[in-house]
Amino acid sequence: MRKPKVVVLGAGYGGLMTVTRLQKAVGVSEAEITLVNKNDYHYETTWLHEASAGTLHHDRCRYDIKSVINASRVNFVQDTVVSINKDEQKIVLENGELDYDYLVISLGSHPETFGIKGLKEFAFSISNINSSRQLREHIEYQFATYNTEKPRRDERLTIVVGGAGFTGIEFLGELANRVPELCREYDIDAKKVRIVCVEAAPTALPGFDPELVDYAVNHLQRKGVEFKIGTAIKEATETGIVVAKDEQVEEISAETVVWAAGVRGNSIVEEAGFENMRGRVKVNADLRVPGFENVFIIGDCSLIINEEINRPYPPTAQIAMQQGETAAKNLSALIRGGELTEFKPDIKGTVASLGEDDAVGVAFGKKMVGSKASFMKKMIDNRSLFMVGGPGLVLKKGKFKFF
Amino acid sequence: MRKPKVVVLGAGYGGLMTVTRLQKAVGVSEAEITLVNKNDYHYETTWLHEASAGTLHHDRCRYDIKSVINASRVNFVQDTVVSINKDEQKIVLENGELDYDYLVISLGSHPETFGIKGLKEFAFSISNINSSRQLREHIEYQFATYNTEKPRRDERLTIVVGGAGFTGIEFLGELANRVPELCREYDIDAKKVRIVCVEAAPTALPGFDPELVDYAVNHLQRKGVEFKIGTAIKEATETGIVVAKDEQVEEISAETVVWAAGVRGNSIVEEAGFENMRGRVKVNADLRVPGFENVFIIGDCSLIINEEINRPYPPTAQIAMQQGETAAKNLSALIRGGELTEFKPDIKGTVASLGEDDAVGVAFGKKMVGSKASFMKKMIDNRSLFMVGGPGLVLKKGKFKFF
Repeated sequence: MRKPKVVVLGAGYGGLMTVTRLQKAVGVSEAEITLVNKNDYHYETTWLHEASAGTLHHDRCRYDIKSVINASRVNFVQDTVVSINKDEQKIVLENGELDYDYLVISLGSHPETFGIKGLKEFAFSISNINSSRQLREHIEYQFATYNTEKPRRDERLTIVVGGAGFTGIEFLGELANRVPELCREYDIDAKKVRIVCVEAAPTALPGFDPELVDYAVNHLQRKGVEFKIGTAIKEATETGIVVAKDEQVEEISAETVVWAAGVRGNSIVEEAGFENMRGRVKVNADLRVPGFENVFIIGDCSLIINEEINRPYPPTAQIAMQQGETAAKNLSALIRGGELTEFKPDIKGTVASLGEDDAVGVAFGKKMVGSKASFMKKMIDNRSLFMVGGPGLVLKKGKFKFF
Repeated sequence: MRKPKVVVLGAGYGGLMTVTRLQKAVGVSEAEITLVNKNDYHYETTWLHEASAGTLHHDRCRYDIKSVINASRVNFVQDTVVSINKDEQKIVLENGELDYDYLVISLGSHPETFGIKGLKEFAFSISNINSSRQLREHIEYQFATYNTEKPRRDERLTIVVGGAGFTGIEFLGELANRVPELCREYDIDAKKVRIVCVEAAPTALPGFDPELVDYAVNHLQRKGVEFKIGTAIKEATETGIVVAKDEQVEEISAETVVWAAGVRGNSIVEEAGFENMRGRVKVNADLRVPGFENVFIIGDCSLIINEEINRPYPPTAQIAMQQGETAAKNLSALIRGGELTEFKPDIKGTVASLGEDDAVGVAFGKKMVGSKASFMKKMIDNRSLFMVGGPGLVLKKGKFKFF
């Protein structure tokens, strides 16, 4: 009897969790497992705001995929997925093809620019290792250039962050700590620097408790961040952005515009022809795609409704990892025979960092701020390492500067 | 009796040496000494190739002027010189005016682009702290951006250095060491990187012994540097440079072009109306300007003929510092009465660095290469610190990683 072929696309939180669990759950004679990923490394998406601001080296945010997979059980293919042919059960890669009996799609998200003009061309994003280190270097280059010009152009020192959601706020927290370092490095008067956060929603950190939102906004304002809440970005241009609030239009000159206001599912999922909303597929309770008994979609390309509020769960690392665990269980049930289990998110908490030593959030049902929240945030970060790579990976890549 | 006012313009090698010697030579009641400098720091011009390549932090290449001058003897003014009015004995600064009885002009050099089109707009220079850290960041930004684009643009990884003279060769030596680090940092295949040195003269390091030139060129070629000797840069453009050799024209696409092929005297010296050649004034043997008994010009703005070969001495830190010593002596003779002494350069040697651990040069009449020359180079670097700031400054800023 031919061994079934399991193909997992993407080694983000969901995909890597699926593979590391599956390699323990099924024997080498039971299935042929293949993991496909563009890079030979996994990166911690939730840490990229630090790499982007330059407060944590990007190498601290990634690790070799080979260091966490069992090479005798899993075949790792470093390649980029071009398309999914769901009818012929084939994956087209840039450098080859794969066919599958079972497929796990965990390709992650892309920035969602909501059709706002110029964002794709002129805004930076905090999406992956490449974009983060480019953003870090871009900001540093502006500071490095400032004193070489006459007249000096203050817009080099203006950074606009589009979005005061989770990523936006965490990035601002790091940036507020990084800017004084950059000012020292390049002999720049800190008063010349302007950090502006533009958020279209009526509040920063939508979904957070208002008390925590106030704490976060006050903390960042004290460090010099200007907030423009209820203000929409109308356009990004070569020289900055155009924003509008209640019909009042304003132009902000800025050499750095960062778009951190939303993600959408992967375009490959759309192109594959699955029913989707902006690249996200509403999956069954067992995480399979309706109508496709052998295709799982997990992570940012999947859509799960939170029945309590009748809205989708936000795409988070926490959910992606839990989905990976369920996907591995269900794959092993399909391979060996057995009951499939339903996915139930278990939201342990949400903590947004405000820099090295401060944070706001809820964990185990308790609101917390300050160094306690910051400690909890680092524990959460370490936990994702632990879940994939055990204590060894925590020791290698973990965050231990607690106080 | 009014104390004579001594004004020293510029705190480079020559100016700072003048002031640190003069503050010991004359008493506080004998003269009022004022030092004017654009920045509150002195930088080691001869180390800037390291800061520019990113192999030495620019803060290691500079120190506070106040740490080496005696505040009770010297009045330090941080300001930029706008013009010299030699007839009224006045200095116009951006934020004020000064008048003098004795003047020392030690304003240093500017890059000389020989009218080559586009160099001023599109080429970087290794001239000061600002330009060096900008160049370092520019190169790093190209590496950071390379993997974020599709298709990748190899010209981001092409660096053209115009000039294989002293600065060009020293910069290439650092760059050849820095590039492998950048490739690791940004996941770039080192084979994609191209470093091209273009030199119009028929040899690299003109004036050096041919055996030393061969050693240097071979060393750099082994590390991947391409040399185009006897080749002139015709034009720098937004996308690279145009070069020509024997009527054969070639375009090289490069995001980074560095002009390291020559310097000229300061334009303020020209505008002051002293007889000059490209901003350099042929001074008397006592370093005074012909026709001006109270004006000394030293360093890169001065021109001294080497009688042995009937050509000017090249503008070096070594000569500037020796001139500073003579200027201080002669100023003190003018103030107190006494004989002025003639300046006689004492060329102790010339060593060009080829990176952290290699060099070529002549010291105390002996040719040397490799780690011996590299050691000598570091001793020369430490010596300039010692001459200005004594052992304390050497300990603080010196180079001690000898092997």
